Amino acid sequence: MKTSVFKTQNCSVARALEVVGDWWTLLIIREAIYGIQRFGEFEKGLGIAKNVLSERLAKLVETGVLERVSVPGRGNPQNYILTEMGRELLPVVIALMQWGDRWIHGPARVPVRVLDKKNRKLVARVQVLSTEGDPLAITDLRLAPGPGADDIIRKRCGAIKREKRKVE
Amino acid sequence: MKTSVFKTQNCSVARALEVVGDWWTLLIIREAIYGIQRFGEFEKGLGIAKNVLSERLAKLVETGVLERVSVPGRGNPQNYILTEMGRELLPVVIALMQWGDRWIHGPARVPVRVLDKKNRKLVARVQVLSTEGDPLAITDLRLAPGPGADDIIRKRCGAIKREKRKVE
Repeated sequence: MKTSVFKTQNCSVARALEVVGDWWTLLIIREAIYGIQRFGEFEKGLGIAKNVLSERLAKLVETGVLERVSVPGRGNPQNYILTEMGRELLPVVIALMQWGDRWIHGPARVPVRVLDKKNRKLVARVQVLSTEGDPLAITDLRLAPGPGADDIIRKRCGAIKREKRKVE
Repeated sequence: MKTSVFKTQNCSVARALEVVGDWWTLLIIREAIYGIQRFGEFEKGLGIAKNVLSERLAKLVETGVLERVSVPGRGNPQNYILTEMGRELLPVVIALMQWGDRWIHGPARVPVRVLDKKNRKLVARVQVLSTEGDPLAITDLRLAPGPGADDIIRKRCGAIKREKRKVE
């Protein structure tokens, strides 16, 4: 039912959440970003039941976020690796991690640091930037209907502009 | 049960997902970023049941992502606005939206464009950058234990290094 409600929403956040909106799903992707590839390693790292893990991995393969690759060994073992579609979730996972570091754990209790391999410095905070590279806050943004907008979105973008004008 | 499994994970992604990992929760935050503040507007925009919306809004106020502000009107109406903690979810939502635009909707069917108000240009793609501003891919990253790391994380960061060395 949840999914069908979301399908009616012409919104990339909602559609993206259909693919990665499940807690376990995003944590599986986190593990894959950490370099985990084997079923048993995902299982150990996540403390997840085998059947749940199987189902989520299969769904992620089906949607194209992960792919199965055969590895040498008895019983045709398969690893799970991120596709380009999956690797491009990196900013989502790192932004979420940095938000958790800052607002939930706090700087003194950060569990994992993400470093640039080249210089061993922390990566920069993930931000929304203008094409010129300036950080943008919510108030710096304006929404406009895209090529796939429907009447609801067109009406909403108009309504938001009016609402913001009223507030400002 | 889900939550208790997550509490045992010393990881900022898992802890962040405890707060915003619910589909509706992240869509409520999307609405707030779009400028929505009123209960009835959230309800209309999301097609969500009143009781579910009430419960999610209350949880977001409790965790500090939203705050209630009284507005003039009959029956003491209250609006919901993003706190600083909530506003800092912007990169997560925009990164997820851009990923959905690219991998689910496709460029020709993007529903909403996010523009820089100043020059009406699209905002840049959200990326993980080095302190020098260079885009970083997964293979450019290295994980290291933070001040809040436990033995499991320390062991894992070591194991990941070994694993990556083996692969490279």
